[in-house]
Order: sequence, then structure tokens, then C-alpha cells
Amino acid sequence: MDKYPEFIKQVDNEYWLVETEAGNYKLHYKIKDILFCWQSNFQHIMILDSYTFGKMLVLDGIVQTTAADGFIYNEMITHVPMNIHPNPRKVLIIGGGDCGAAREVAKYPGVKRIDMVEIDEMVVKACLEHLPEISGNLCDPRVNFIFKDGMKYIQDLNRQNDDGIEKDLYDVVIVDSSDPVGPATSLFEADFYRLLYNVLEDDGLMACQSESPVFYAKTMKNTYDRLSAIFPITRLYTTTVPTYPGGIWSFTIASKKYAHVNPSKFDKETICVNKEILESCFAIPEFVKKILDTQTQC
Amino acid sequence: MDKYPEFIKQVDNEYWLVETEAGNYKLHYKIKDILFCWQSNFQHIMILDSYTFGKMLVLDGIVQTTAADGFIYNEMITHVPMNIHPNPRKVLIIGGGDCGAAREVAKYPGVKRIDMVEIDEMVVKACLEHLPEISGNLCDPRVNFIFKDGMKYIQDLNRQNDDGIEKDLYDVVIVDSSDPVGPATSLFEADFYRLLYNVLEDDGLMACQSESPVFYAKTMKNTYDRLSAIFPITRLYTTTVPTYPGGIWSFTIASKKYAHVNPSKFDKETICVNKEILESCFAIPEFVKKILDTQTQC
Repeated sequence: MDKYPEFIKQVDNEYWLVETEAGNYKLHYKIKDILFCWQSNFQHIMILDSYTFGKMLVLDGIVQTTAADGFIYNEMITHVPMNIHPNPRKVLIIGGGDCGAAREVAKYPGVKRIDMVEIDEMVVKACLEHLPEISGNLCDPRVNFIFKDGMKYIQDLNRQNDDGIEKDLYDVVIVDSSDPVGPATSLFEADFYRLLYNVLEDDGLMACQSESPVFYAKTMKNTYDRLSAIFPITRLYTTTVPTYPGGIWSFTIASKKYAHVNPSKFDKETICVNKEILESCFAIPEFVKKILDTQTQC
Repeated sequence: MDKYPEFIKQVDNEYWLVETEAGNYKLHYKIKDILFCWQSNFQHIMILDSYTFGKMLVLDGIVQTTAADGFIYNEMITHVPMNIHPNPRKVLIIGGGDCGAAREVAKYPGVKRIDMVEIDEMVVKACLEHLPEISGNLCDPRVNFIFKDGMKYIQDLNRQNDDGIEKDLYDVVIVDSSDPVGPATSLFEADFYRLLYNVLEDDGLMACQSESPVFYAKTMKNTYDRLSAIFPITRLYTTTVPTYPGGIWSFTIASKKYAHVNPSKFDKETICVNKEILESCFAIPEFVKKILDTQTQC
């Protein structure tokens, strides 16, 4: 490790990743090795091997997922919407370059097609090669990788509709984006959600990560409000992701028809999610409810 | 801030608390001010004002509770056992020097006596004066402060019983200890739990913090197993505490008779706990269940 990238600090012959995201609160991860390091057209990509959390995907210096706890996020963003819709056949994933969400969706034999629209092909390549703990060596003929900006993909689908071309609609859309800075900014806008509504079947639904209720309460609230203005049903759930600042993380469901999880048939091999977790996922802390209940600002 | 204690680091005119607990994973908190700093007979005590989490109680350099998120821990360790027992009148708190658990117990008018046994009087004094966000300026005639080692207190109560002196038994005991290093070590031992069983009424129950399933899975498992060997009913629940490493934190209930939470009458003013959270608190992630299900080692 003679040369090391800007996000890695060398202190007394030790190598540390220092997350500088939350200015006055820093997380330092001691690093064994840099397995992959690349400046793509969109972001700085690293796969690091850390002492505490094993392998980690790091974009622009921010930890996105780790071998130790990535399953929590990926299972929660996937199995909740997949068990609200009674029979999802066509699923779209926007983002999700670590392939973890696609891997979870692929556990449903009823699913006939999984379109995965990721802006950065290098993230997918890096995770398939160096992060099998998350990507699970994903190789499923139902998965179509489309390397394109998520907003542009949805705009193009809407345009086909306007041109009278028969649309191919989705039952479930999962928006597995990074934070609303850099390439993912547009995926948190009301315009995007309006266009996304149009690519869902009449009983379709979407799920997105909506950031931390502790550190990014405003983003969570805006996401919830923007979706509530478009979809008849909006519900928020939370989980704990140890490597995300603040630990508690939120997801939002926006649905045209179905509101309730049906965990009775849940039989997938998972590490975090089980029937009880699905059944109770919408039980959220009082302070999170209060944030959602305050007057809409967006 | 001309002189600063050993746990505070000065970097470029900024002051940082660096938690060195988890060797290869460090949390750094930027500090505005040191409000209290004292080496007691038991531990190093600080109350710091931090930028991200407001005021924090720090013992031997480890963050114990903060103004921003301390309510989550204190509400979860209190309201779950208080809503399993149908009519708690006599409550014992062991530890809990920040007074947050006592403050939550005091919300129940049916409670006639709250004995709070804390080894370190200086922690209580510091929190009552400098951390009202957690201690709530606790001043309730039902609270008896007993500044004594928790193990010794329970041993003395057992001895009274052996001597034929009529015992004063408890309905609910809350063991709100720090980590099993330093003064709290004996509060995680099987001997302690056996003696504690004897100071509970025939339908009594206890709750304790049982550490992180991510970073201290062995302690969690040992605590659960040791209690299971003594009590007929043992149940584990989790919550997210943003300032604890790993975020997810576990608590264990050990009970002589009652097993289920009855949230229907829950009407307390709280920031985290509500009826839904109480109702679903025993829904725990699959990997936590698996840790509990592995062969007992203790």
C-alpha cells in the first residue's frame, strides 16, 4: 500500500478511512487493504478491506455498504415492498450498484424480469468481482443491467408512453440510491417521483431509502411529503444499519393500491428479515412519527 | 479550555473526544466545552457539550448517554418491563446514575417506591446539575438514592432473608449498568442474577441492558443464557441508540411469571416509545435470534 488515495489517512504505519461527512462527528475505520480504487466518470470508487466490518464499498469517501452489515439494508429495502405486492413479476431497481437488492429480488421465483438501472458500470463490476459477500456473485438470466442515469431512464420510458408506444410497466420499483449529493441528487426530486408513478402498474408500488431520521430528518421528511403528494398510500419504516451515521435508517413505501405487508408466506433465506420483522416494520419511534406529522414544507 | 483531560485530543485548536473502545473503529466527537470533569473513587467522569449530540455523559472516556438520543435507551429499558408487569409498585434500579431510568419509572403513579442503587454518587450529582435533558431535574419523594455497589446491595438483602428478617421484595428490577468492564463487571455474573432472583416478588421481573449484538455478541449471549438458567421466562429485545457503536443495542427481560407486554393502556409522554414500539419490541432480526439459539457456552 505504497500509494494511497485521498480518502485514506496514514497514521503511524496504520491506514484509516476517515468519513468526514458529518463534520463534527467522524467515523474512523482501520483498513487492512485497498482491493479496488478507481475514479469513474461519476465518482471515486474504492473497495476496502477493513478490520471491523470486513470488505466495504466506499464512494467519494463515504461507506455505502459492508460485508458485515450490508445485508440489513439490502434485505429491508427489498423484502418489505416484495411482500406488500401480492405477486410482483416485473421489478425495476434504480441504483443498487452493489447488486445486493437485485440478489434479494432474485430470491422470488414469481419474478420474471429484474431491470437494474445503475449510472456507474464500474461500481457493478467492482462489486461483482471484489464484494461477493453483498453481490452474491449475482448471475441470473432475469437480471438486465442497464447502465444509465435513473432519471433519464424514467424520462425515456415516459416519453415512449407519450409517443403512443406501449409501455412496459413495473409491479415494484426499488430506488436504492446513494445520498442526495453527487449522481443521486435527482432521485430525491418530486419530478422524478411523478415520472416514476407513470411507469408503475395500476397496483404497483415503490420503495426508496429515505436517509437517517437523526442526521437527515429534512431529507426523510421531504421524501415522504413529496411521495404523499403523488401516491395515495405512503408509509415509512426504519431499521438499524451499524455503519451508517446515527445507526437508524429510514425507507419509504409509496403505493397505488396495497398498504399492508403479508409476511405469512415469507420463506426466503435471509440474515436479518423474518416474519416478525416484516409484520412490525411500520412500528416506528414516536420522534420519527412526529417529524412526519409536522406541517409539509416542500 | 486550557487544560484538558486525557480522553480529549486537541487538533488544530479543535477539541475532540476519541472513543478508543473498539480499537479498529473509532468515533470522534467534536467538543464545544467540558462542563464537568472529575476522577471519582470509581471512574473518570465528564459531562461534555458536543456539537453533534449536545451534552454527553462520558465515563472513562466512553460515551454513556447524550442529550440527543439518551431518551431512546432510557425509555426502552424502562417502559418494556413496566408494561409487562401489570401493576408495578416497588421498583429497584441498579446503576442508572444519569437518573434517566428513574425519571421514566416516576411517570407511573402506581409506583410507590423507587430505590436507586448507584455506586458512584458523583455521577448522579453531575447529571442532576449538568444534564437535566436526561435526568429531568429528578426530584420525586418516591426515589431513594442509595450510593452503594449494586452487587453488595443485593447480597445484603439476601443476607437479611437468611437471618429471618422480613424482606422487602421488588416487582420490577432494572439493571442499567455500564459495560462489563470497571465497576459494572459483577452485574453481568450468574451469581448476581441468582441473588437478584431472590429479591423479586413471586410475579416479579427484571430487565437489563445486554450490550450490542454486533460488537459484543458474546456478552449478549452470556447474559441471556445465564438469566435463562435461573428464570422461567427470558426474552430479548433491541433498539437503535445512535451514539453506541454498532447502533443496535439489546436488552434482556427475565421474569418469574409475566411474558407479554400489554401496551393497550400506555399513555406516558415519551419521545421514542409508543404503543406500536411496545407491541413489536420482541420482533428481533434473524441474526440476533441465531446468536441466542446457538449452543449455550456459559
